[in-house]
Amino acid sequence: MNQQGPVVAIVGATGAVGTTMIEIIDARPSVPWGEIRLVASPRSAGKVLRVRGQDTTVQALAPEVFDGVDVALFDVPDEVSAEWAPIAVARGAVAVDNSGAFRMDPEVPLVVPEVNAADATNRPKGIIANPNCTTLSMMAAMGALHREFELRELVVASYQAASGAGQPGIDRLYAELAALAGKQVGNRSGDVAEALREAGLGSDSPFPAPLALNVVPWAGSLKDDGWSSEELKVRNESRKILGIPDLKVSATCVRVPVVTTHALAVHATFGQDVSVDAARKVLAAQPTIMLRDDPAAGEWPTPAAVVGEDPTWVGRIRQALDFPNTLELFVCGDNLRKGAALNTYEIAETVAASL
Amino acid sequence: MNQQGPVVAIVGATGAVGTTMIEIIDARPSVPWGEIRLVASPRSAGKVLRVRGQDTTVQALAPEVFDGVDVALFDVPDEVSAEWAPIAVARGAVAVDNSGAFRMDPEVPLVVPEVNAADATNRPKGIIANPNCTTLSMMAAMGALHREFELRELVVASYQAASGAGQPGIDRLYAELAALAGKQVGNRSGDVAEALREAGLGSDSPFPAPLALNVVPWAGSLKDDGWSSEELKVRNESRKILGIPDLKVSATCVRVPVVTTHALAVHATFGQDVSVDAARKVLAAQPTIMLRDDPAAGEWPTPAAVVGEDPTWVGRIRQALDFPNTLELFVCGDNLRKGAALNTYEIAETVAASL
Repeated sequence: MNQQGPVVAIVGATGAVGTTMIEIIDARPSVPWGEIRLVASPRSAGKVLRVRGQDTTVQALAPEVFDGVDVALFDVPDEVSAEWAPIAVARGAVAVDNSGAFRMDPEVPLVVPEVNAADATNRPKGIIANPNCTTLSMMAAMGALHREFELRELVVASYQAASGAGQPGIDRLYAELAALAGKQVGNRSGDVAEALREAGLGSDSPFPAPLALNVVPWAGSLKDDGWSSEELKVRNESRKILGIPDLKVSATCVRVPVVTTHALAVHATFGQDVSVDAARKVLAAQPTIMLRDDPAAGEWPTPAAVVGEDPTWVGRIRQALDFPNTLELFVCGDNLRKGAALNTYEIAETVAASL
Repeated sequence: MNQQGPVVAIVGATGAVGTTMIEIIDARPSVPWGEIRLVASPRSAGKVLRVRGQDTTVQALAPEVFDGVDVALFDVPDEVSAEWAPIAVARGAVAVDNSGAFRMDPEVPLVVPEVNAADATNRPKGIIANPNCTTLSMMAAMGALHREFELRELVVASYQAASGAGQPGIDRLYAELAALAGKQVGNRSGDVAEALREAGLGSDSPFPAPLALNVVPWAGSLKDDGWSSEELKVRNESRKILGIPDLKVSATCVRVPVVTTHALAVHATFGQDVSVDAARKVLAAQPTIMLRDDPAAGEWPTPAAVVGEDPTWVGRIRQALDFPNTLELFVCGDNLRKGAALNTYEIAETVAASL
């Protein structure tokens, strides 16, 4: 660390998550960083971004940018993290990585600070992984409920925002909505895909089907037996974060035409007796959870209301009528904040506090 | 029935479902109706609509419009059906009702022809009920799988289209999308609700929150213990249609910014061994189901691709990794067609065939 304080590098500083990371650093005075380095691909190098009141030039990713860095935050594709996080570590940094490259590595802790902060101290590779945004959206709530009621089973359906696919996902959704505005399509007489083609929107989309006026039951890549990588991440990462190796999980991941904030319908079965009132009490006591659960007053979480917020919002808590010890919940979390940049930064705060 | 053939009345002929019903009657020559009467509220009476090539004047709802009618199809609010279906029966018609007024009446069969057509013949009140559109979207698939593998449990999350709230729902979604076009909202710096207010869209929406760039975990009215009426319909109607009084069901119903076609993520547990291949074989053999299940080829059901189609599309079939005898599926069905008008009309075809 330099004389003024620890040095942090943000790798992928110009992407959707990197941009959110800078907003969070500006808003949270928690760490008196001595220096904040912005790093990106050579394409974005040279851009000047304002961070904590300072104009800061984005540097091209190179081994030297990690010299003197204490904590390096990575939000880049898996293969970039796989190559560069170890380089940052070799140059002396702790790497906090938001890609999928290291999450299931047994020598890399996968951390949600309010659930398993202690795991962050055991990092034989010098790398700490940040969970997938879909998993992360429900972890604060599931961690709190698990401590009290012993989580056994999760059946999850997701409503995932376009920004889960980064800035290209956001751009594409806005472009599709602009192209369809005023057109009466998505019905028997007007085809959405055709209207997009007519408007000149090609098939070079981050999504495998039109997203405007549609939902798309696919996120990630194809794994064994028809599962998507996103669905398996929800299963495997939940098990690792919660420390329940035999947690039963089934997830269906679906993209929806929302810009930012993932939502999840969760069916959670516990080993102990659980009631709606007891669950509400546990959740209300968590500093990073907001209960929004009063349907009579029209109160429940929606992505449009949650976006830009740090806490996870939880509502629609119901006791399953036919399944013992089981709750239904609807959870919304900003996938760029708690789902990505915020949790990564919270890990960085933990690391900085121990330097 | 008159000399030319049976007489059918469509009550609610000018609504979203009524309009679809007329399209279906035009397209399906199955029944040589002697007369097709269009009926609506006094507000819509006098309109002239074209049905099977004939200009037909919409009549105001009154007891006399049912004189000589063999089959009366109702798509009107619960309280209108509750009052008028018995009047149609008293005047000699069989009433096929798509409201919630009679569905759980033990003396009224609740019918999906490919699942329980035989139930339609036992109608002590002269009324046959058509299921709720959300339930109906998965019934053809669940009925076929139940016959083979004995369905025991359903955990369902819905992605419900705006037209489930009728023409006002469609109009509102288009109006919201038009108001937001070109605006970078739904993110940290632009609030959807505020943008709608600024565009002059009031709170007189059929939805309890903005639907554009959002998902809303609410449909229907509030019932006991935080459940929505829509969620309880999925449970109670599934049990009745499938003839499984102790079927375990948990549903979470969520509105999404799609015009027409409901989608469901279904976690289905069976009493018998089940495999993806065996399930595919059963589903592929159903005339009213289209398998769209090849993720490697980018093939799965989406609402935008399904809208206007008669069959239910089923895809994303996966064996649950941690739950025995359990499949995950993603199902899409046009909520105005199979979810409402088409199933109602299929019941009418069954009744007409027995006259």
